[in-house]
Amino acid sequence: MIQEIEFVLPDEIENRSFEIISEELKGKNIVLKAEQEMVIKRVIHTSADFDYADTLAFSEDAVRKAKELIAQGADIVTDTNMALAGINKGILAKYGGEAHCYMAEKEVMEIAKESRSTRAAVSMEIAAKIEKPVIFAIGNAPTALLKLYEMLEKEIFRPAFIIGVPVGFVNVVQAKELIAGTDIPYIINRGRKGGSNVAAAIVNALLYELNKSE
Amino acid sequence: MIQEIEFVLPDEIENRSFEIISEELKGKNIVLKAEQEMVIKRVIHTSADFDYADTLAFSEDAVRKAKELIAQGADIVTDTNMALAGINKGILAKYGGEAHCYMAEKEVMEIAKESRSTRAAVSMEIAAKIEKPVIFAIGNAPTALLKLYEMLEKEIFRPAFIIGVPVGFVNVVQAKELIAGTDIPYIINRGRKGGSNVAAAIVNALLYELNKSE
Repeated sequence: MIQEIEFVLPDEIENRSFEIISEELKGKNIVLKAEQEMVIKRVIHTSADFDYADTLAFSEDAVRKAKELIAQGADIVTDTNMALAGINKGILAKYGGEAHCYMAEKEVMEIAKESRSTRAAVSMEIAAKIEKPVIFAIGNAPTALLKLYEMLEKEIFRPAFIIGVPVGFVNVVQAKELIAGTDIPYIINRGRKGGSNVAAAIVNALLYELNKSE
Repeated sequence: MIQEIEFVLPDEIENRSFEIISEELKGKNIVLKAEQEMVIKRVIHTSADFDYADTLAFSEDAVRKAKELIAQGADIVTDTNMALAGINKGILAKYGGEAHCYMAEKEVMEIAKESRSTRAAVSMEIAAKIEKPVIFAIGNAPTALLKLYEMLEKEIFRPAFIIGVPVGFVNVVQAKELIAGTDIPYIINRGRKGGSNVAAAIVNALLYELNKSE
């Protein structure tokens, strides 16, 4: 039988959702690290998928470092216009940061075609020219992570932070593990799952935490 | 141990992904209905979550009906700018359709605040004024589905088609089941899961199928 519609005021829907998530994590005996809690819960909120409590992986002090970067005005580069649409650009702008996605730019398409590369990989090369710290929020293309890894190995470019949560079936698992093996601070999601929505949720969790703490 | 990186040409990544999805569905002894196959596989492709093979639910001839509506120039209204960003608006435009999201409009925020309603519900009232058939693609807000249901019950407005895949914890399951109980053609996802990415994937599966068959 279907439950009845619960009466919840618009402003309270999100709080009620986080209460339910907290209760169910407790029911599953999952205890999250305090620093990571709001990131993981926001990803569960955006996916209704409790697997993320097990698979999201953080480098040491990742949340503190990402928040510091944002507070210092870091830019965010993402690999989909969907993630770009989902990121709270208003809060980011308060700290001097901008969010970018180069995927739909004509130049990117042309270079990708000529070089038999992916648009995501070409986008990373363009992002590497940004002259301030950049947080990468990759929700779709493992080839974006592979390009970041390659540029790091060749000492061409160092990302300030990598949120590596592409979703899919071809090289997705491998690309995320490569990033986790570097010395760049990261938040990744082990396994195949992830997505633009997950990338945006992680960025927004960081933005909201930072904004709240001021 | 991590698998090695697989060498796949950019143009072939999507095909390879769908091959893997098909193989794994076979391995799980899941046989999809021919009409629904590409929609379900594209949702799995966008989420890496095989649960959708069990939970996506279609009214009779839903895929054929949705494709007919698009071919006749129906508009698409969605409840997030993320889904709007993800929809292939180029193919939609070929058939005379436009995609809309009213969530970020100032008027919507003001009316929602005054009426203690959600922006998603107000967006549906605005969409109801579109003077052509409208396919609703709801990936976030159950309140959008509840508003569509209410307008239908009161005989104020009949959506041409509802893609009802909001994600979350408050009234999400109930709102989707309400839509499944109407006589409006639908694709819904039973349970809590869904999302803007899922809504966009369903719309794009319909668009690609239609475009391919021409």
